[in-house]
Amino acid sequence: MTRSKTPLTLDPAVLGALLDGAWAAERRRGRALVEHPDAIPPVTGDLDELRAATLRGVKALAESGATFRSLPEELGGANDHAGYVAAFEEAVTASPSLQIKAGVQFGLFGGAIQHLGNAEQHAQWLLPAQRAELLGCFAMTEIGHGSDVASIGTTAVYDPEEQEFVITTPFRAATKEYIGNAAAHGRAAVVFAQLVTAGVDHGVHALFVPIRDESGVPLPGVTIEDDGRKGGLLGVDNGRLSFDGVRVPRTNLLNRYGDVAPDGTYSSPIDSPGRRFFTMLGTLVQGRVSLDGAAVVAAKLGLDIAIRYGLERRQFTGADDTEEVVLLDYQQHQRRLMPLLAETYANGIAHEVLLESFQQVFSGTDDSDEARQVLETQAAGFKAVSTWSALDILQECREACGGAGFMTENRLTGLRSDLDIFVTFEGDNTVLLQLVGKRLLGDYAAEFKNIDFGGVARFIGTQAAEHSLYRSGLANVGRTIGEVLTPGLTERRIRSGRLQQMLLSARVDTMVAELAGNLRPAAKMSRADAAALLNENQHELIEAARAYIELLKWEALDTALHSLDDDPARADEAKALRRIRDLYGLTLIERKIGWHIMYGRLSMNRARQVGPTISRLCTKLAGNAADLVAAFGYGPEHRRATIAEGIEAERQAEAREHYRRARAQADHPVDEKVLHAARKTAARS
Amino acid sequence: MTRSKTPLTLDPAVLGALLDGAWAAERRRGRALVEHPDAIPPVTGDLDELRAATLRGVKALAESGATFRSLPEELGGANDHAGYVAAFEEAVTASPSLQIKAGVQFGLFGGAIQHLGNAEQHAQWLLPAQRAELLGCFAMTEIGHGSDVASIGTTAVYDPEEQEFVITTPFRAATKEYIGNAAAHGRAAVVFAQLVTAGVDHGVHALFVPIRDESGVPLPGVTIEDDGRKGGLLGVDNGRLSFDGVRVPRTNLLNRYGDVAPDGTYSSPIDSPGRRFFTMLGTLVQGRVSLDGAAVVAAKLGLDIAIRYGLERRQFTGADDTEEVVLLDYQQHQRRLMPLLAETYANGIAHEVLLESFQQVFSGTDDSDEARQVLETQAAGFKAVSTWSALDILQECREACGGAGFMTENRLTGLRSDLDIFVTFEGDNTVLLQLVGKRLLGDYAAEFKNIDFGGVARFIGTQAAEHSLYRSGLANVGRTIGEVLTPGLTERRIRSGRLQQMLLSARVDTMVAELAGNLRPAAKMSRADAAALLNENQHELIEAARAYIELLKWEALDTALHSLDDDPARADEAKALRRIRDLYGLTLIERKIGWHIMYGRLSMNRARQVGPTISRLCTKLAGNAADLVAAFGYGPEHRRATIAEGIEAERQAEAREHYRRARAQADHPVDEKVLHAARKTAARS
Repeated sequence: MTRSKTPLTLDPAVLGALLDGAWAAERRRGRALVEHPDAIPPVTGDLDELRAATLRGVKALAESGATFRSLPEELGGANDHAGYVAAFEEAVTASPSLQIKAGVQFGLFGGAIQHLGNAEQHAQWLLPAQRAELLGCFAMTEIGHGSDVASIGTTAVYDPEEQEFVITTPFRAATKEYIGNAAAHGRAAVVFAQLVTAGVDHGVHALFVPIRDESGVPLPGVTIEDDGRKGGLLGVDNGRLSFDGVRVPRTNLLNRYGDVAPDGTYSSPIDSPGRRFFTMLGTLVQGRVSLDGAAVVAAKLGLDIAIRYGLERRQFTGADDTEEVVLLDYQQHQRRLMPLLAETYANGIAHEVLLESFQQVFSGTDDSDEARQVLETQAAGFKAVSTWSALDILQECREACGGAGFMTENRLTGLRSDLDIFVTFEGDNTVLLQLVGKRLLGDYAAEFKNIDFGGVARFIGTQAAEHSLYRSGLANVGRTIGEVLTPGLTERRIRSGRLQQMLLSARVDTMVAELAGNLRPAAKMSRADAAALLNENQHELIEAARAYIELLKWEALDTALHSLDDDPARADEAKALRRIRDLYGLTLIERKIGWHIMYGRLSMNRARQVGPTISRLCTKLAGNAADLVAAFGYGPEHRRATIAEGIEAERQAEAREHYRRARAQADHPVDEKVLHAARKTAARS
Repeated sequence: MTRSKTPLTLDPAVLGALLDGAWAAERRRGRALVEHPDAIPPVTGDLDELRAATLRGVKALAESGATFRSLPEELGGANDHAGYVAAFEEAVTASPSLQIKAGVQFGLFGGAIQHLGNAEQHAQWLLPAQRAELLGCFAMTEIGHGSDVASIGTTAVYDPEEQEFVITTPFRAATKEYIGNAAAHGRAAVVFAQLVTAGVDHGVHALFVPIRDESGVPLPGVTIEDDGRKGGLLGVDNGRLSFDGVRVPRTNLLNRYGDVAPDGTYSSPIDSPGRRFFTMLGTLVQGRVSLDGAAVVAAKLGLDIAIRYGLERRQFTGADDTEEVVLLDYQQHQRRLMPLLAETYANGIAHEVLLESFQQVFSGTDDSDEARQVLETQAAGFKAVSTWSALDILQECREACGGAGFMTENRLTGLRSDLDIFVTFEGDNTVLLQLVGKRLLGDYAAEFKNIDFGGVARFIGTQAAEHSLYRSGLANVGRTIGEVLTPGLTERRIRSGRLQQMLLSARVDTMVAELAGNLRPAAKMSRADAAALLNENQHELIEAARAYIELLKWEALDTALHSLDDDPARADEAKALRRIRDLYGLTLIERKIGWHIMYGRLSMNRARQVGPTISRLCTKLAGNAADLVAAFGYGPEHRRATIAEGIEAERQAEAREHYRRARAQADHPVDEKVLHAARKTAARS
C-alpha cells in the first residue's frame, strides 16, 4: 500500500519536546555546536589532519562552557550531570570522533579525576582538564583484559622511602590498549593499576600519571605506540601505553575510595575489595549513559537522511506508464524503515528516563545503593540495545539509499563506521546484557549457594523489582510456566497497550523463572559444575536481559504517550505516538512470536494478526514520516548529506521538463517513445 | 557448555574438497594471487595511491592469464566460465577492491564486449581488455536510474549521413554514476543508451565509446567527475560520465542482439523489445554469480580470523580461580559464531551448484531458455542472501574480536566496509529477491490477467518447478493451508533431514499459494488497483523468495552431505556436515518458528526442542571449529590479521610465566595475590 493518504496533522515541535525531554535546552545548545567554525572535522584526510581537526572541535566544545556544567557549584559548575550529557551527546551531529574524543577528555579523564579524586586534585587537574588545557587519557583497558578489568596486570607498587608509586607494565598483555588521546595529544593519563602496598594487593585503583612533557615527548619510562588506522573514529588518536618503573608522588593516587598513608598503610571507606571495585567503576557510568544517547542521535541522523531521500526518490512505474513510484510508497520500503523509526522513538524517550535516574544519583537527590543499582542496570542494558540498534538502523538506511548511501558525502557509511565500536567500548554489549541478566537473577556466585529454591524465586522477584522503574511484572514469577494470562487473552485488539505490556512482561517473568529453576541445582554443585551449568544457560540469560530492557523501553514510550492523553489539541500527536508504540511493541512481539505462542501467551488466531497489523501501521506512519523525522530537530547543518536536501526532486523535475519539451517539439517525437517503451519493459520485469 | 570434549577426527582436506567444488584447481590458482608482489594493495593511503596499487593488482591478475579462461577457444581461452569466476572470486583474499576493479575491467567491460559484441569487436577490443591493456568502464547505471535500467535517459541517436551514433546525456539524472574505472583509469566505456534510429526508439543497447585520449585527458564532449570517497572499495576509481553529442562510428554498436544498417534500418534476432532487453542483461549474469562467491570468500576470511582468535583469547575465570575461560567455550560465543559458520558452509556449497548452472549455460552445454531462467533466478537469489549474510558475519566477527576486531590491521572492518555495497550493486538485494518472488509467482503483470484462479495455482506449480534444481516441494501448492504434513509430524527427531526439508519447503509452498490467492482479484482490477494490491503483498513476496533461496541452499548442503554417505573413511566428516546442515536448517526454522507453529507444521512440543538442539549443535561444532575453518584453505598470507596468528597465546604464556616466576621468588609474593584477588572479584561480577 502506498503511504497513508489521510495522514494525521502533526506538530513536530510537540513530538520534539517529548523526544528532547527535560534537558531540551542543553540538548539544543549541544546541537548548536555545529555552528562553531572548528566544530566539524573534515570527513576525509590523513590521520594527522583528522586528529588535529578533531582536537580543535574538542577545544570548541570546552570554549562553549558546556564541559563545566557537570562540575559541582564550588568549582564553577551547575551540578547538572544530565544536562552536560545531553549537550555532549548532540556533539555526534558535529562528528562522532569529536564526541568520543571529548568523552575521553571530559567524561573519562576529567570524570575520573572528579569522581575518584579529592578537592586538591580537582583544583590541580580537573579545571584544566575541563578547559581542554590539560589533555589526558583514561588508561584502563589492557591488551589482555578488556571486559575483565579486575584482572588487569599493571601494578602501582608503593615505595614508602620515596613516598612514590612505581607504575609498571609487567608483561605485554598488560599494555594499556585502545587508549584515546594516547597516540598524539595526551599529556597525562589516569592509569588503572593493581595497587600494592606493604606487600599486599588492594585491587584496582586509579592514579594520575604524566606521560608526555610540554613539548609532547614521552616521559622517561613511558612507551607510547600509535594504534594507527581503525574501522572508524579516525579523529580519535588511540594508542598503547606501557610503563617501566614510572614514579609518581603518593598524592597522585585518586584517593576517594582508597588511600595510602605516607608510611604505606592502606585505608578505604569501603571494606570489601569487590564492592570498592564496583563502586569506583560505578562512578564512571556516565560513559554508558552518554553512549546510549549518542547512539540515538546517530540513528536519528540516519533516519532523517534516508526518509527524506525515500520521500523523493522514485524508481519503476506502478499505477501508470509515466509516473514512477516514490520509494516510501513501496510496502517493503515502509517495512524496512518505519519499525526502525519507532525503535528510535523508543530508544530516545527511554534515554530521557535514564537521564533522570542519572541526574538523581549524581546530583545527590537520591544516591542510595538501590538508586545506583537501578541506574547501572539501566545504563548497561539501554546502552547495549541502543548501540546495536543504531548500527542496524544506519546499515538499513545506507541500503535504503542504494548507491547514493555508499557515498561518503551522504554521511551514512561514516556514521556507521564511527558507531561500530560503540557496541564494544564502555562495556561489551554481550557482557553488559549478561550483567543485566545476572542482576535480574541475583548474584549467582555469591548468593545462590545459600538459598533454597523457594528462596531463589522470592529473591529474584525482589531483586528484579529493584531494577524496574515500572512494573516489570516480575512479581509474577511464582506462576507456573504456560499458565494462561487471562487478562491478556481477553483483550480483543492486538493494538491494546495492555496486551502488549502483558506479553512483553510475561516473557521476562517466565524466562527469569525458568533460569532460576535451571540454575537451582548449582547450589549443591562443585564450582566447576556450577560454572558449566551457568554457561549452559548463558544464551537464555542474555535473551532474558534483552527482553527486560526492551520492556523498559516500551514502557517509557507508553508513559510518554499517556502524557498527551488529556490534551485534545494534541490528539493527533498522541495518535501518532500510539502507532509508534504499537509498531515497536508488535515488532518486539513478532520477533519472538514463536515463544509467545509456545508458552500459551498468545493464541494462534491473535498471532496471525501481528504481521498484517505491522504492515498497516507502517503504511500509516509512512504518511507522516516527514513530520516524524522533523521532530528530531535537525537541519541541513546537522545532516550534511547531499541526498537529503532536495537534489533528487530537482533532477526529476529537470528530466520531466526535458520530456515535456520533447513531446511539445514535433521534431523530437522520439523521446516520448523512448520513455514509454522503457517503462513498459520495466513494469513487466 | 564448553566446547565438545570429544570432537570428531576431521580431515580439513575432505571438507575443503566439498567447499571448493568442481573448480577447486582454479580456485587455488586464484588464491595464489596473493603471492604476486603487486597483488595486495595497501590497506590505507590516499585515494590516488590506493587506486594505483589496485590497478597494479588488476594487471597482475591479467598477467596470470586467468582473465582469458572464459574466452572462447578461438580467442585463446578455454570456454571455462565457472573456472574463471572461481579464480576471480578468490581475488577477495588479495583485496575486495582488486576483485571489484578486476570485475569491472574483465567481467563487465570485457564481458559486455564478449557477450554483446561481434568477432571483429572481439579482436579489436576484447583481447586488449582481458590483457588489461585497454582499460574500460561499464556505463549502465545513471543517477536517476539504478535498479530500473530500462528507464535510463542516455540516448544514442543514429545519424545515417555520417554513419555515426550521437551519444547524449539529456539531463542531469541521466549522468552515468558510480562507474568503476571512470574516475582515473578508463580509456573507453561500454555505454548503455536508448538506441534511436529513423525516429524510433528500440530500447537499451550498448555501444563502445572512447572516453579518454592516450594521455588520459577526457575526449571532447565527455565530462568526467570523480565520486571521491566512498564507504569502502577505496581502490576502485568510481566516477560519473556524461556525454554532450559524442559521436562514435556505427560499428561501435555491440550488435549481437540489435543492429543498425548504414541506412539506419534496425534489425534484431529477437522481436520483442522486452525479451531483447532481458536477454542482453542476462548475458551479464556473471557479475551476480561472482558476487555470490566473493561474499562467501569474505565470510570465510572473517570466520577464519574470529574463530582462531576465539580459540585463543581468554576472559574471566570460570571453573577455578586462575585459569581464564577461552572465548569459544562460552555458550554465547558459540551461539554467535557457529550458526554463521554453518551458514557459510551452506552458502559456499550452494555457490558451487550455481557455478555448475552457470557453466552449463555459458559453455553451451545447455543454454535453453529454461536453463537460463533457472540460472538467473538462482544467481539473483543466491547473491542477495549471500551478500547480506557476509555483512552480518563480518560484523559479528568484528564484535566477537572486541576492540582488536576494530583495528584495521585485523582486517575485519575493512572487509566489511568493502563488502557493504555488494548488497546494492549488480542488482539491489531487495529488487533481486522481488525478481525471484515474481518468477516463483509467474510474471504477474503479463500472465495473471488471463488465468483463472485454479489456473494460477497450477501455473505457479509449473513455473516454480522450472526454477528448482531440486524438489522445492512447490508441487504441493494444491494442499489447503494449515493441512498437516503427516510425514513430517511422524518424524520423531528434530534433527531429521526429512523433517527440516519438509518444514522449509512447506513454508515456500504455502507462502506462494497464499500470495497467489491474495493476488487473484488483480486479474479483474484496473492497473492502479492491481499495482496497489501487488504492493500490499510485496513484503510477503520477498519473504517467500528468501525462504525459497534458503531452501535451495539447505538442499545443496544436504546433497553434499549425502555424497559422503558410502565412504566409511569419511564418516566423521559426514557427521560434521550433518551437524552443519542441521544447525543451518534449525536456525532457519527457528527464525520463523512462529510461522511453522501457526501453520500447523510443527507441534509446540517439537518446537520447544529447536532452541536446545541448536545450542547442543553449537557446542559440538565448536569442538571442531579449528578444523572447520582450516577446511577453507586459507593461510596467514590470506588472513593477514595479527590476532589470527597466535599472538594472544604468546602474550598469555608471557603473563603466565611472569606470575609463575613471581610465585617462585620469595621477594615477590605479592603478584600471586594480585592475580588471585582480581580474579575472585571478577568471578563475582
